Amino acid sequence: MAEEEPYRLYLREDQIPTQWYNLRADMPEPPEPMRLPNGKIAEAADIAPVFCDELVRQELDDETAWFDIPEEVMEMYKVYRPSPLCRAYNLERALGTPAKIYYKFEGNNTSGSHKLNSALAQAYYAKAQDLDKITTETGAGQWGTALSEAAAHFGVDLDVFMVKCSYNQKPFRRSIMRTFNATITPSPSDTTEIGRKMLAENPESTGSLGTAISEAVERAMNVPENKGRYQLGSVLNQVVLHQSIIGLESYTAMEELGVYPDIVIGCAGGGSNLGGLIAPFMRDKINGTHPDTRFIAVEPASCPSLTRGRYAYDYADTGQTCPLVKMYTLGNGFLPSPDHAGGLRYHGMSPVVSKLKHDGYLEAVAVKQTDVFAAAEEFARLETILPAPESAHAILQAIEEAKKCAETGEEKVILFGLTGTGYFDMFAYDAHRNGEMVDHVPTDEELEAGFATIPSIEGIQ
Amino acid sequence: MAEEEPYRLYLREDQIPTQWYNLRADMPEPPEPMRLPNGKIAEAADIAPVFCDELVRQELDDETAWFDIPEEVMEMYKVYRPSPLCRAYNLERALGTPAKIYYKFEGNNTSGSHKLNSALAQAYYAKAQDLDKITTETGAGQWGTALSEAAAHFGVDLDVFMVKCSYNQKPFRRSIMRTFNATITPSPSDTTEIGRKMLAENPESTGSLGTAISEAVERAMNVPENKGRYQLGSVLNQVVLHQSIIGLESYTAMEELGVYPDIVIGCAGGGSNLGGLIAPFMRDKINGTHPDTRFIAVEPASCPSLTRGRYAYDYADTGQTCPLVKMYTLGNGFLPSPDHAGGLRYHGMSPVVSKLKHDGYLEAVAVKQTDVFAAAEEFARLETILPAPESAHAILQAIEEAKKCAETGEEKVILFGLTGTGYFDMFAYDAHRNGEMVDHVPTDEELEAGFATIPSIEGIQ
Repeated sequence: MAEEEPYRLYLREDQIPTQWYNLRADMPEPPEPMRLPNGKIAEAADIAPVFCDELVRQELDDETAWFDIPEEVMEMYKVYRPSPLCRAYNLERALGTPAKIYYKFEGNNTSGSHKLNSALAQAYYAKAQDLDKITTETGAGQWGTALSEAAAHFGVDLDVFMVKCSYNQKPFRRSIMRTFNATITPSPSDTTEIGRKMLAENPESTGSLGTAISEAVERAMNVPENKGRYQLGSVLNQVVLHQSIIGLESYTAMEELGVYPDIVIGCAGGGSNLGGLIAPFMRDKINGTHPDTRFIAVEPASCPSLTRGRYAYDYADTGQTCPLVKMYTLGNGFLPSPDHAGGLRYHGMSPVVSKLKHDGYLEAVAVKQTDVFAAAEEFARLETILPAPESAHAILQAIEEAKKCAETGEEKVILFGLTGTGYFDMFAYDAHRNGEMVDHVPTDEELEAGFATIPSIEGIQ
Repeated sequence: MAEEEPYRLYLREDQIPTQWYNLRADMPEPPEPMRLPNGKIAEAADIAPVFCDELVRQELDDETAWFDIPEEVMEMYKVYRPSPLCRAYNLERALGTPAKIYYKFEGNNTSGSHKLNSALAQAYYAKAQDLDKITTETGAGQWGTALSEAAAHFGVDLDVFMVKCSYNQKPFRRSIMRTFNATITPSPSDTTEIGRKMLAENPESTGSLGTAISEAVERAMNVPENKGRYQLGSVLNQVVLHQSIIGLESYTAMEELGVYPDIVIGCAGGGSNLGGLIAPFMRDKINGTHPDTRFIAVEPASCPSLTRGRYAYDYADTGQTCPLVKMYTLGNGFLPSPDHAGGLRYHGMSPVVSKLKHDGYLEAVAVKQTDVFAAAEEFARLETILPAPESAHAILQAIEEAKKCAETGEEKVILFGLTGTGYFDMFAYDAHRNGEMVDHVPTDEELEAGFATIPSIEGIQ
């Protein structure tokens, strides 16, 4: 480039993609199919009671590469998209690295994260299907906030089950969801059968994502006249599909700059942001256009599904009421240590991301949260964005890769996903700043206890 | 326009202004000069101990229309600017108005508000002057956060005096400032003479902006070797100058769209956002290019300096240690009701804004906070931005004007400033949502008690 690149590149509105990209259609092998507890491959009719019809179609379709984004969703995308592709000049200078560091910033909306990209799609399809109610769970609160915002926009009633420890620690997360008219219930709760069961087993339970999912599904199933559906903010193929908007915009923006990433980095909890960010670049790796691009998933050492989990069929939820998906999993009964501060605490991982990891297309690293928060603070001071703890996992790894370039002199192009902002995570920032944050890495025994909850199904695993 | 306008218009990086615009140079009469307590007009040497040299020059210069933005400040502007000019299509549709509503959104940075525009300039000049420490006060916390961020970037030590009621109610505001290494002291404190005096008079005092200013100035004056300076986030001419970046970008963006505002609306506390937003448009009104543009300042009914205050010389601070400025003021001893939730609680108003109001170029309205929060919630649901309570004053007025257009059928162009986000104001949102928010409009007697604190200076007033 003769011209220096801008700090932030915003595409024009007419450059926002009008279709989502389905990476499954171009994978050498698609991810393993969803199965019912009896081992049978799930068909549309099996999961239609749980998910909206159009979302079922997207979930099960491994062949269609492009899905039109409904006009109503496009209209809302235009309110907060395109998101900027940022060149981290300040970070590069601070690191003294020859690497070019880019990040795609998805926090420029009230929900504060990329989750809104899928929430708008899911709430829209619920409205289009004339449903009375949607339900979901939320842990750190980003997904619940996003779906609240989307549901309010499309005029759909929403019940959110919020993991109890987050409910107690993040009162303002509740507030903002209520601002968007959602009903928030701490999970486990006495409002569902599975919640009551969990409370009977452990009245002091502070909850888990897996349990909150079970409660949300049960609530959806009990809406009269089959007018309730459950919605999930990550893991599922449909969510990775919607989040491809992140990667597609990044791809176009980098084309405009005339650069291509050597390394693409994303944090990984359920895998939706990562799967969406990497999608078009992974296509190029798979089809041989750019075979050497590295893809790195960054997960917390306290919840290391990709780096220490098993690649197996497991329940998506702790209540074992959902279908099974083949993924890297710590076992549906695994709970990350309460010392773990941020999100990224799901026991499993997107089947798409899992398959790519399993087949050698994707690397994974696990990092400690004290290092993550140190990176987050440095980033905030340099780049005027206070990152979500989740996003800071990717920042840390980008810094590591850029430091390597500083040693070797390589001018690599690094792209990472900055999924959101940390305004509701100040308790955790405080804990880090006060030296009160500890790192917990599960012992092999703790992992074994989790693995013991992975079901054994004849003929499948 | 043949083409429909985009929801959000981002200028290119090379369209970010490289100079600030000084409206004073083009006003028919400049604002009244700053004076010392003895009535003498303040000269550079008089205020140089308090403010950085370059800022003193900017403060006193009513003639230079354009000031170069230092390269170091431009580099940081590029990290978070240009800010988008947003077309509020969703709001327009909800109101069924033929009006075109635009807002300039300044919340896309960690400080969450426009305050960073001046904070970066002020911290830079402090660094350039090789100072050891800067000090400031903060009320709602936006300015303190912005200056913390700027001071961390340029490597200047910062002490922030935070009004005690905010310090107690907004723990996360403290956290974020500490993330940027600032030292935060609740005001009134026992760390300054004026603070101890205030505490002796009222040990239960929850503080005021005026008192926090006095403490911050005293702290700056006591830095050894004349190496401390005080910095202020609003009111002053220099701050209005820096904030002209808001108006200049808006002006360029609207030129690109081929539209010109009939009405420009801004919230008004100290007046810096309003003064900056209106600057280039007000120039056009003054020079006759666009004589009919209306400018509306929106202030809280609980702190109504422009609508019910006196146009008089008053101290900038409650401790009566600062110079005097001619402004609309409720008296330096005036305190808004503790029922008042948001910012915009300063007793006075920018001399530039005050002069424009006094000379008939600017209208002012006072609004109730329950109406403000109702507008904020509606806006959040429609536009995916959770507004700061301060900004929501402007939203409310924009809605009022757009509703009038719906009645008359006039296709007016409305521009308002959306100064920031409300992530740290969820207590107030909760209070509104729970029906616990009350409106307090000062009685005439309460105002008279404030006016009694306005000094009487022979030959001046």
